[in-house]
Order: sequence, then structure tokens, then C-alpha cells
Amino acid sequence: MPEGFHSSYDVRVRFAETDAQAIAHHASYVVWLEVARVAYWAEHAGGYRAIQEQGLEALTTGLQIDYRAVAAFDDVLTVHVRCVGVKGARFRYEYRVERGGELIATAETRHAMVDAETHAPTRVPPWFLEAIARAERA
Amino acid sequence: MPEGFHSSYDVRVRFAETDAQAIAHHASYVVWLEVARVAYWAEHAGGYRAIQEQGLEALTTGLQIDYRAVAAFDDVLTVHVRCVGVKGARFRYEYRVERGGELIATAETRHAMVDAETHAPTRVPPWFLEAIARAERA
Amino acid sequence: MPEGFHSSYDVRVRFAETDAQAIAHHASYVVWLEVARVAYWAEHAGGYRAIQEQGLEALTTGLQIDYRAVAAFDDVLTVHVRCVGVKGARFRYEYRVERGGELIATAETRHAMVDAETHAPTRVPPWFLEAIARAERA
Amino acid sequence: MPEGFHSSYDVRVRFAETDAQAIAHHASYVVWLEVARVAYWAEHAGGYRAIQEQGLEALTTGLQIDYRAVAAFDDVLTVHVRCVGVKGARFRYEYRVERGGELIATAETRHAMVDAETHAPTRVPPWFLEAIARAERA
Repeated sequence: MPEGFHSSYDVRVRFAETDAQAIAHHASYVVWLEVARVAYWAEHAGGYRAIQEQGLEALTTGLQIDYRAVAAFDDVLTVHVRCVGVKGARFRYEYRVERGGELIATAETRHAMVDAETHAPTRVPPWFLEAIARAERA
Repeated sequence: MPEGFHSSYDVRVRFAETDAQAIAHHASYVVWLEVARVAYWAEHAGGYRAIQEQGLEALTTGLQIDYRAVAAFDDVLTVHVRCVGVKGARFRYEYRVERGGELIATAETRHAMVDAETHAPTRVPPWFLEAIARAERA
Repeated sequence: MPEGFHSSYDVRVRFAETDAQAIAHHASYVVWLEVARVAYWAEHAGGYRAIQEQGLEALTTGLQIDYRAVAAFDDVLTVHVRCVGVKGARFRYEYRVERGGELIATAETRHAMVDAETHAPTRVPPWFLEAIARAERA
Repeated sequence: MPEGFHSSYDVRVRFAETDAQAIAHHASYVVWLEVARVAYWAEHAGGYRAIQEQGLEALTTGLQIDYRAVAAFDDVLTVHVRCVGVKGARFRYEYRVERGGELIATAETRHAMVDAETHAPTRVPPWFLEAIARAERA
């Protein structure tokens, strides 16, 4: 586990996720980061449905990916993930995507907790904050 | 225009829609058929939003595609489309995907008009029926 | 395991695979069928790469899906899969997608083994035939 | 046209590109940026195939998106795009995604021209440089 990360989830590159350069298409990583966030919530915070059941949604407000090496069909990639910088309605996730210890990509996503109906920013609920704190001090 | 078809829409194969076989991935066609249905509704029946504004959704209940020739990145494909067999809550679309007159694929999708909330099958509204009839006798 | 099926693989519905009807988009199933085929090859026939290493590719030539019930975000779906009807360069896969025993979809895909360079149909190699025979009589 | 941009291309949000939050999924934008780059190359530099015909590929090495407002099914989005900072094998694209003048997202992608076989970074060819210079001083 890279320093500072306590959670990681694997994905296997699907054939549909490759492109005519015979590598994983760069948009596929965005989906894998989301798969890792969802798995993180499932492991640490009662799942994304726990957020939805309170009438909230987590919108993605920003995204940054640095691609360091290409990935190919059927590669197993480990997405290390951590939640950082929760403040008000906002929080960030950082990622390190590896293939057997080789660095494939680093990434960051930014999010806002919002009311599911109005999309008005809504302070991250205390139980969510506590779940993140527990997960990250693990 | 192939015999029996009165509507057609073009798509250009996106790089993200190709795969490591250097051809358009076979799941991409499913999205193109939907793009053609949506364009058909926009042209003939007030758009898909006209359906949604009545509290309805058109679910896809079946799908059949025969791939006749491969398509490549940047190919312009013409999706010929017609609506057939409206009955009760059910209707079908038939498609013929061509590239400059060359047959690339034939397809069929089956749909059910449903209540947006309950997903209960709901008879196709008269205005939709009439719009289809006008479009197909054009 | 449904009668006649000896292999099955699970997928979890990704958020990116849902659509504005709040269900799994109908094109997502096409990708899951492929994931199941790839897993089947990995389990029974040395993986898809074993095919590629012989200069072959398996093209998808046809597709049929009957959607029986909708699936939602985070649902775990079991894709039961079997290979049937290998003949010359052609073979078919049949699928039954279930959620905890509830039928979600049935499907069939048709394929042709082709030369990777020329796309000329190429008789299914004996080792592949034997692997399928072993898998299906299991 | 926003200041400093000379090229723009439209995309219409596909139903398959929405998610269960009833908005365009954040990974869809990555594909639209690519569609705009490809259209830019077609308009100004002989198309992406001109690059491929020289044994080159343009890899994506970095990506940054700031989402400012959500987009919905069937929205027509204008992707303003410009190529900046060509140096050696590297170049960047900047984007401004708008819906009828309303800012939806800003973005940047970073790329490396590479040898198609070896993926070794390869200096951007002079004709490509000249095409970019012409396009951006337009």
C-alpha cells in the first residue's frame, strides 16, 4: 500500500474499455476512480445508498488525471484511494493506480454534497465525516 | 434510402468507441441505435422530452443486431430507422446501418411505454401513434 | 446454477452504467456479456490472449438480448454463460443474467474466429474446441 | 466565441451518456473533448488519420476538468477548443464547454506524439506545427 493510503480496490481492464491504440482508453480511468470511490463508501461509510437515502447526492465538480504508463486489455489494476480535505459541502479523493507495483496513473477528484432535488450544496453529514476520519486513520 | 425507410441520421465513429481490434466496439452500435431513435422522436414526435413530460418513459425490452461488416474510427455511418408494430404499450424499431451504401449492420429494438414512477406498462398515447403513422407513411 | 449452465461470473452495476431512467442502461449488458465471455475463456481456455497469440481474434457477428426486469446501481448480477454450436469458424454463447435468482435478462452472442490481420474466417482451433467441450460437459 | 478560441464543435448529450443523477455523467465530458480534438484535426490538420499514416499516435498524458454546471439529456453543448504549448513531442489542448453561452466546464488535456509501434516520444512533425499555428492565429 503506498504511504498515506489505507484502501485499495482492483479492476480488470475490459475489452470494451480499450481503444484502437490497443490500450485502455483514457476515459476508462474516470470510471475506475468512481468504482473505487463506491467501493470505499461501501467499505467505510454504509455505501453510496446511505448518502442517497438521506436525500443527498455527491456531485463530481473536478477531475485531474496524470497518465504515467499505458494499461492494456485484461490488466489487473489496483486503485489506491483516500478521502482528503472534507470542508463544508466539499471533499476530495486522491488516487494512485498501479499494476503490480508499477505506477500507471495518479488522480484527484473533487466533489460537492448536494441536495438530490435542488442540487444545493449541503454540509457533509457528521456520520460521513466520522466514517472518513475512521477510514483514513486506520 | 433503403426501401421502407423514411428517416435516417448520421453518426461518426468516435475514437472512444473503438476497441483493441481497431474496429468500432459492438456495444457502440446499441448507443447509435438509441441516438437514431432520439433523433427520430425529435423529427417526428416532439422529442423524447414530450414523452417524459407526460410522466412516461420508453423502456428497451429487447435488442437484436446482426453485424455484417466492421466499422472503423472516423467512419460516417448512416442509421436508417423506422418504427413498426405499435400495439398497446409496445412498439419496435428496425434499423439498417450503412456506410456510403455498404451494409454494416441490421438491427431491431423492442420497447414498452411505461409509467415513469411505477414502470407499469402504459398504452402508447394517441398523439405518439399518430406521429409514428405520419412519419412512416411519409 | 440454471440447468445447462456450468459457468457464471458476477458484475456489480457501476454508477457510470446507469442512465437518467435510474436503471442500468441497456447497452451496459453488452459489456457484461463480454466480461463473462472473457472470464469464461480465462477459466476454461487459457484466456483471450491465448487466442490472440495465435494471430486470431473472435469477432462478434450477432447479438440478441431480452430484458426481463430492470437492474439498478450497485446491484450484483450473476451472468451464467455457456458456449454452444461451434462449427467451422463460428460459435455462439448463451447467457442468463440473474440477480439473486431473479431473471434479469437472457441473451445470445454469435462470433466468428478470424485472422487478426485479414479478418478472414478461420476454423476454430482444435485446442479451443476441446476446451469448450470440457467446460460444457463439466 | 470566447476570447482566444477560434474553433468550436457541438455535441448533443446522448441518453447513454446520462446517469442515475439524471445528468450527463462526468466521464462523458472526456469523450466530448476527444470528439472536439478529432474535429479540430479534421478541420485544420488533415484529420487524425494523417497522424496515423505517418506511423504516429497522439497519446493522452494528462487531463483536467472543472465542472461548473450540470448538463442534461439532449442538451446541445458547444466545445470551444484550442491547441497550445506545442514543444518537442508534447502539446496541450484547452477547452471551454458552453450551453448557449452558459459555462458548463473548462478543461485541459495534455498529449505526447509517439511512435505507433514503440510508444517512444517523437517530435511533433513540422506540418502539424504549421497547421496548429495557422489554426490558432486565425
